[in-house]
Amino acid sequence: MPHRIPRWSVWLLQASLGWRRTACALGASVKQRCLGCPWGVSGPLTVREYSSASRTPEVRLTQERYPVQRLPFSTVCEEDLATFEHIIPGRVVTDPEELEASNVDWLRTVRGCSKVLLRPQTSEEVSRILRHCHERNLAVTPQGGNTGMVGASVPVFDEIVLSTALMNQVISFHRVSGALVCQAGCVLEELSQYVQERDFIIPLDLGAKGSCHIGGNVATNAGGLRFLRYGSLRGTVLGLEVVLADGTVLNCLTSLRKDNTGYDLKQLFIGSEGTLGVITAVSILCSPRPKAVNVAFLGCPGFAEVLQTFSTCKGMLGEILSAFEFMDAECMQLVGQHLHLARPVQESPFYILVETSGSSAGHDAEKLDSFLEQVLGSGLVTDGTVATDQRKIQALWALRERITEALSHDGYVYKYDLSLPVERLYDLVIDLRSRLGLRAKHVVGYGHLGDGNLHLNVTAESFSEALLGALEPYVYAWTAEQQGSVSAEHGLGFKKRDVLGYSKPPMAVQLMQQLKALLDPKGILNPYKTLPTRA
Amino acid sequence: MPHRIPRWSVWLLQASLGWRRTACALGASVKQRCLGCPWGVSGPLTVREYSSASRTPEVRLTQERYPVQRLPFSTVCEEDLATFEHIIPGRVVTDPEELEASNVDWLRTVRGCSKVLLRPQTSEEVSRILRHCHERNLAVTPQGGNTGMVGASVPVFDEIVLSTALMNQVISFHRVSGALVCQAGCVLEELSQYVQERDFIIPLDLGAKGSCHIGGNVATNAGGLRFLRYGSLRGTVLGLEVVLADGTVLNCLTSLRKDNTGYDLKQLFIGSEGTLGVITAVSILCSPRPKAVNVAFLGCPGFAEVLQTFSTCKGMLGEILSAFEFMDAECMQLVGQHLHLARPVQESPFYILVETSGSSAGHDAEKLDSFLEQVLGSGLVTDGTVATDQRKIQALWALRERITEALSHDGYVYKYDLSLPVERLYDLVIDLRSRLGLRAKHVVGYGHLGDGNLHLNVTAESFSEALLGALEPYVYAWTAEQQGSVSAEHGLGFKKRDVLGYSKPPMAVQLMQQLKALLDPKGILNPYKTLPTRA
Repeated sequence: MPHRIPRWSVWLLQASLGWRRTACALGASVKQRCLGCPWGVSGPLTVREYSSASRTPEVRLTQERYPVQRLPFSTVCEEDLATFEHIIPGRVVTDPEELEASNVDWLRTVRGCSKVLLRPQTSEEVSRILRHCHERNLAVTPQGGNTGMVGASVPVFDEIVLSTALMNQVISFHRVSGALVCQAGCVLEELSQYVQERDFIIPLDLGAKGSCHIGGNVATNAGGLRFLRYGSLRGTVLGLEVVLADGTVLNCLTSLRKDNTGYDLKQLFIGSEGTLGVITAVSILCSPRPKAVNVAFLGCPGFAEVLQTFSTCKGMLGEILSAFEFMDAECMQLVGQHLHLARPVQESPFYILVETSGSSAGHDAEKLDSFLEQVLGSGLVTDGTVATDQRKIQALWALRERITEALSHDGYVYKYDLSLPVERLYDLVIDLRSRLGLRAKHVVGYGHLGDGNLHLNVTAESFSEALLGALEPYVYAWTAEQQGSVSAEHGLGFKKRDVLGYSKPPMAVQLMQQLKALLDPKGILNPYKTLPTRA
Repeated sequence: MPHRIPRWSVWLLQASLGWRRTACALGASVKQRCLGCPWGVSGPLTVREYSSASRTPEVRLTQERYPVQRLPFSTVCEEDLATFEHIIPGRVVTDPEELEASNVDWLRTVRGCSKVLLRPQTSEEVSRILRHCHERNLAVTPQGGNTGMVGASVPVFDEIVLSTALMNQVISFHRVSGALVCQAGCVLEELSQYVQERDFIIPLDLGAKGSCHIGGNVATNAGGLRFLRYGSLRGTVLGLEVVLADGTVLNCLTSLRKDNTGYDLKQLFIGSEGTLGVITAVSILCSPRPKAVNVAFLGCPGFAEVLQTFSTCKGMLGEILSAFEFMDAECMQLVGQHLHLARPVQESPFYILVETSGSSAGHDAEKLDSFLEQVLGSGLVTDGTVATDQRKIQALWALRERITEALSHDGYVYKYDLSLPVERLYDLVIDLRSRLGLRAKHVVGYGHLGDGNLHLNVTAESFSEALLGALEPYVYAWTAEQQGSVSAEHGLGFKKRDVLGYSKPPMAVQLMQQLKALLDPKGILNPYKTLPTRA
């Protein structure tokens, strides 16, 4: 059960003022556990909701909880099962208990009632399965590690679950170019270890790394912790093998950095959440492994200063900057109150976490020190501490990564994952505090500032329709007014598909629907996902 | 006339052995002129062909030189001209002399016979023009700086030329995020200056920068000199505004780094050479301007050592590596023989140009010195020289950038721009030398090794069908066997569209044709380009 929430041991972060390297006392490997649980930096999980899972309250069927109608797909019959058994002998799962984990998302918010889980090992098997499903008009939900946030990876009704779990072989790795080619079901963390042993890193890291599959990462265009430095998967994915709805294998699995022959078809499948095709293999460009990592944790007097610190940071740290995260004072208060984490710097309205990754420890420390002198001297930053060894780094990261957990102890949590122009990033938090007044316990903002990605969270004693009504569609409309994105990194899946229109104009939505119709005319691939319900 | 070839002044590069910083005597700003002429690093131009342009030999009409049939589009009539004049008063060009530059590609290899050049200033005007053309079934060729290599930007028959030249306004620049939003007709060099004044750089640089338009760069997915460091436009382009074939404006012009709401439609238009829509505005992420640049020029005893040096370089220079180019001994011989450029290091079978760009001159020099000590000590590199000031850097770059010019003095040049797995990059050169024997004067290989991009050139006293027959389709088939790309960065356009099948499987080509039919059902946008002639 990879998603079980760990019992966080209380640990102390010894505060260190000034620029001396921090001495942090850390009871256990926090980072490992942070990264081992799927919500990682930004997940909307509340411990309360999740812990209850092991106490077995039923997750309601999606079809009962949400207003959604089953489309007229066929139903799996004995002949279908026999066909599948012929294609993948011994790997057709129909036992309801075994199916449980594939029918429910890890947030335990949606539940399908699929009767069949298929576990192919090759793209040829995927092709034969989809050819049959296409002929029979059977709906299919592709599933990787099932760690998504928006219900994209579980069936809504009785869709067949097509798991990539047994497609977990590395196909090749080029030590010169850094191109890794592997099957879609490889677990991110295992790939990460594989290339690290060869002195490379995968350009993607996220909290769910211990469970998520690289195919699912690509299918959802995962963002994560290395985005600021290594950029989008749209630039680092070199090639894909995809099986289309009718079983056709589309082989675009090259390992070339440059290829301007015709349209770049693989882009269609990156981020399309399995609705246009099933990704069966991935070619991805890995970067040389950095030899040195530093983390600075800073206190900042205002959001304007946070932004100026970001600009200064980009200029002075340049090529070694690998993360720039922020959190507000209320976040720090919550991690202190609920998790007993000590604040490592003086109390401030805002806190910043800066990470550097480079090829020379000495150079990186010098650059970081110059930057810190500059921002401290100019008053952009009022206090800070720096960590260089792995455990201390993890301790500072935990202050940022465990905000989600702290929030979950504060009551019911309304969660939003937004992209906004960086200069407006915090305005919505201020606006909401004023709008909600005493109806909210806390309105907090934190996130990947370097990527313009705000995690906006509102807590209250309990769920209230009135508070929800004050938040939605207000938050979405506010975001739309800033030309922001109502889903920065989590995607739309089942749960957010109807807010697509806040971030994309009608013409774009229409073209998306045309693409869906072109690639999957029967609509059998991951139905009820990504695109809004048609009027 | 931005493409006129400059008369290169003879200049000397003073050889420097060992690791002392080179003292180069350089008559004029070579780099500036190198970058100012469109072929830059890799263009297929021969000076002989091009210089003759100003001596006015006619470029034959494409329809006479190539086996291509006009499709049944309408012909522009007086009423059409009146409509255009109404939409863009004073900006409808019908004078044949003024049209000359738009009908002929800068390589002077293809010529259309368009009678109309339209110069809109806004996307609304582009929309109205296309709506009319769509209704009337009039074919349209979008044109930026007209600096392409494959005949994509000029009409084949009498297509209307739709120029972005007057759409040249910067819309916004965010000093914190580095997001630049501008109209499609902005010249790359002007944008580059604009953001450099704000301490940023465009993540794209190429020889044609003085003429090419950012919209054309995006439409052709340009690679260029900064690719190794800043990656593909697919990762750095944040948003696009595109006018579709029927005049619909598709507004995906966001400046967000992260946006996972639905399919990423802008990717369809990046690299599609104006065949799916007309890009009217671009949002692109700029990076902080590096404070220090170093160039090392190295001699290497064999291609295996070139590859090992590349691996060492990636490991030791890591985040500051910004270019890794190679050239073989015959290239050096040709730049010496024809351009009188002195070899700056001892004679070697291969030469490497390594560029670093970073935020600290001292740190970068130290890293570079450590790297050089390592590769020299281990025998991977036998000699080298380093330049740090701008003029000397340009002098070393010129050895690499002027290979194209040197080749043009050597006779008729057969040119190929290939992506290959980096470990096989040079095998084709060796193979061809043996295959062609005395039929070729020189078979040379050079290029962006860091990107796996080989420029393969074969010279002969004059053009020969027999030699062409020995080269094609052999080179394409050889590339296909290595899962390479027959067009790494130049695209397919008109001239290479029929070799698409060497790099993409039939299913992919079919899907591309379906996408074309979906987005441009009448086929009016840049016909005869990108996709192969249908059987």
